Amino acid sequence: MAPAYLDNNATTRVDPQVVAALLPLFTESFGNASSTHDYGAAVAPALKAARQAVQALIGAEFDHEVIFTSGGTESDATAILSALETQAGRNEIVTSAVEHPAVLNLCQHLERTGRAKVHVIAVDEAGDLDLDAYQAALSDKTAVVSIMWANNETGKIFPIAELAALARGCGALFHSDAVQAAGKIALNVRDAGVDMLSLSGHKIHGPKGIGALYLKKGVKFSPLFRGGKQERGRRAGTENAPGVVGLGVAAKLALEADRARIAALRDRLQAGLLAAIPDARVNGSGARAPNTLNIAFACADSEAVLHKLDQAGIAASSGSACASGTMEPSHVLRAMKVPPLYLQGALRFSLSRETSDAEIDLVLEKLPAIVASVREKSPLWAEMLKKTA
Amino acid sequence: MAPAYLDNNATTRVDPQVVAALLPLFTESFGNASSTHDYGAAVAPALKAARQAVQALIGAEFDHEVIFTSGGTESDATAILSALETQAGRNEIVTSAVEHPAVLNLCQHLERTGRAKVHVIAVDEAGDLDLDAYQAALSDKTAVVSIMWANNETGKIFPIAELAALARGCGALFHSDAVQAAGKIALNVRDAGVDMLSLSGHKIHGPKGIGALYLKKGVKFSPLFRGGKQERGRRAGTENAPGVVGLGVAAKLALEADRARIAALRDRLQAGLLAAIPDARVNGSGARAPNTLNIAFACADSEAVLHKLDQAGIAASSGSACASGTMEPSHVLRAMKVPPLYLQGALRFSLSRETSDAEIDLVLEKLPAIVASVREKSPLWAEMLKKTA
Ligand SMILES: Cc1ncc(COP(=O)(O)O)c(C=O)c1O
Ligand SMILES: Cc1ncc(COP(=O)(O)O)c(C=O)c1O
Repeated sequence: MAPAYLDNNATTRVDPQVVAALLPLFTESFGNASSTHDYGAAVAPALKAARQAVQALIGAEFDHEVIFTSGGTESDATAILSALETQAGRNEIVTSAVEHPAVLNLCQHLERTGRAKVHVIAVDEAGDLDLDAYQAALSDKTAVVSIMWANNETGKIFPIAELAALARGCGALFHSDAVQAAGKIALNVRDAGVDMLSLSGHKIHGPKGIGALYLKKGVKFSPLFRGGKQERGRRAGTENAPGVVGLGVAAKLALEADRARIAALRDRLQAGLLAAIPDARVNGSGARAPNTLNIAFACADSEAVLHKLDQAGIAASSGSACASGTMEPSHVLRAMKVPPLYLQGALRFSLSRETSDAEIDLVLEKLPAIVASVREKSPLWAEMLKKTA
Repeated sequence: MAPAYLDNNATTRVDPQVVAALLPLFTESFGNASSTHDYGAAVAPALKAARQAVQALIGAEFDHEVIFTSGGTESDATAILSALETQAGRNEIVTSAVEHPAVLNLCQHLERTGRAKVHVIAVDEAGDLDLDAYQAALSDKTAVVSIMWANNETGKIFPIAELAALARGCGALFHSDAVQAAGKIALNVRDAGVDMLSLSGHKIHGPKGIGALYLKKGVKFSPLFRGGKQERGRRAGTENAPGVVGLGVAAKLALEADRARIAALRDRLQAGLLAAIPDARVNGSGARAPNTLNIAFACADSEAVLHKLDQAGIAASSGSACASGTMEPSHVLRAMKVPPLYLQGALRFSLSRETSDAEIDLVLEKLPAIVASVREKSPLWAEMLKKTA
């Protein structure tokens, strides 16, 4: 296996403490949390503790504002569909051009099938949202705004409190996809004034297949899954108790992580690469999640670079894992109008609390030569050199 | 913990072989299956093997007809909502009065919100579907039929091949909730001619939070979760690789289980209880899943009996775990017109391949005295004794 794993925005290694905590729920406390006998009763306190850990991570007022789901995608879909269903007389969605496909593809589908009108707000080259367009899109027809807290490709952080206040001003619900923000930056749903928020376990060293939806007390809600009375009737389906317990421990550990150390590692990587490799640019300026670096090398095709990195034992990405394999240029970077020569040469390095100095060193050691070798085979690069010569 | 666990229809203990198989996916092969680097690539073959194991369990023609979901509830919702969305010009659902709430509550909601017209087909006292009413309900307006393969409370098995043929005859899709059938009885989606089928990992000694939807090749489909391209674009969201691998092993083990032994244990329990306890009746006759016994003792309040069973170290249930705690009499038994004196005294014992002779012995030893002691305090029982005296 690769000695440098720098694709933590795709997914993270499950923390051994998380594994240790959830293991007993497979074969010992395996009961159905909804059962009335001993086997069921043994599980309830563990679920409660996990709910409180997630509550603490996001600064919710009540633990029952946390609904466990199967992950970020389900949380996003639940939030948006619920808002459309409960906000009588409102059928418009306001979102951004750089949302995760879990939000964007759903919105497109809702528009295509005539269930909603969608306003996709543009961003500028720095990745900042067009605030004028945002305000212009808001109206008494807006059912819900869905703007991510931090972008998965660039780490860019959005001014959620400000955006939520504007949404509230026109009576719309505000949802934030915080899958890449939770555990990485300070997050407080109360201070920010959001109504709904999504997070996902596997992005914070928790298990895959578990996530949470924050639903502010008093906000009208329509469940996506109906059936059993689990999660106070808001998410039917037998509780994934091991997943929930794992997410709880992951949330607790994420809150304790040394984010400054991660930021310092990321900054060192960024500075080192910019110094060593010409014609490089960082995508996304301003506030960023401390663990994410999106950097593009002109004319250095990212698929070729990633392949060589992989061979050198370094795992990184050219965008979101969901889009990987499709070779489509990132919708996020296109929305940020990254110049064509750079667009195809963008790489994402995403760190975590497990990232070591040695991993950063390895990238700094290997990447300059890899970029150079890929550029050597690029006719565009030859042209670019001629022009600047 | 209780020495007799007879609530396997609520959930099962995860098989240690399942745990062993999924553990490495937490901390070693933890990559995102959609990533192009080594970490991602390591996961793909494991997912493929799991898909083939589920394929084998249900007799599907192709492994890609298996879509992994978060469980039975999601599979049910996905199937029904997809059919409504893709079956142009058809907006009716035909289902039965004894379906799981995951189907019934969704259907009620769709009807309440004007998105579908729902025909709920009655059953008779044996639990058999009213076939005349079923045929009368089918029409060129029927988008989808959803009838469970085996009932979770009684074990009753429905004639799926026959029902599916009738649905096909009118151009409707046929979905079957096989959450309580998969791994317990022989199941073949091809022979039965179903278009969609739901199953859930935690009912067959697999993990909670993982399930599958069988989607016959060629059947039109509209995903519930849109976003990443996972599951061939049919179910977005980072693959729950540990869950999937766990489900695969669980499917393989379920296929190898000695079902005749389980049936023999269940039959011994049934015969023993009927012999030892007067005024008892088995709910559901005809073909039943081999692991399920629903038995009612007149005037012996089931909550009181279950409490004493729990104290004696025996876990059983009064119906589905989802409804537990609500103390509502089972909608299944009411649909079967179980007489009132018996309705409140119904117990479900559900076995699995892990059930031992000793567990059955313990129930046979303890239950007669428990029922007698609960009856002693029942004024209805006193009356009943007087009448028959
Ligand atoms: C027949 C049936 N369908 C659906 C479900 C729901 O499955 P899950 O709890 O995995 O969502 C269950 C179990 O509770 C069930 O017994
Ligand atoms: C910003 C963002 N939202 C949503 C998701 C989807 O989360 P999950 O894969 O847990 O469904 C992801 C991760 O892929 C993400 O980065």
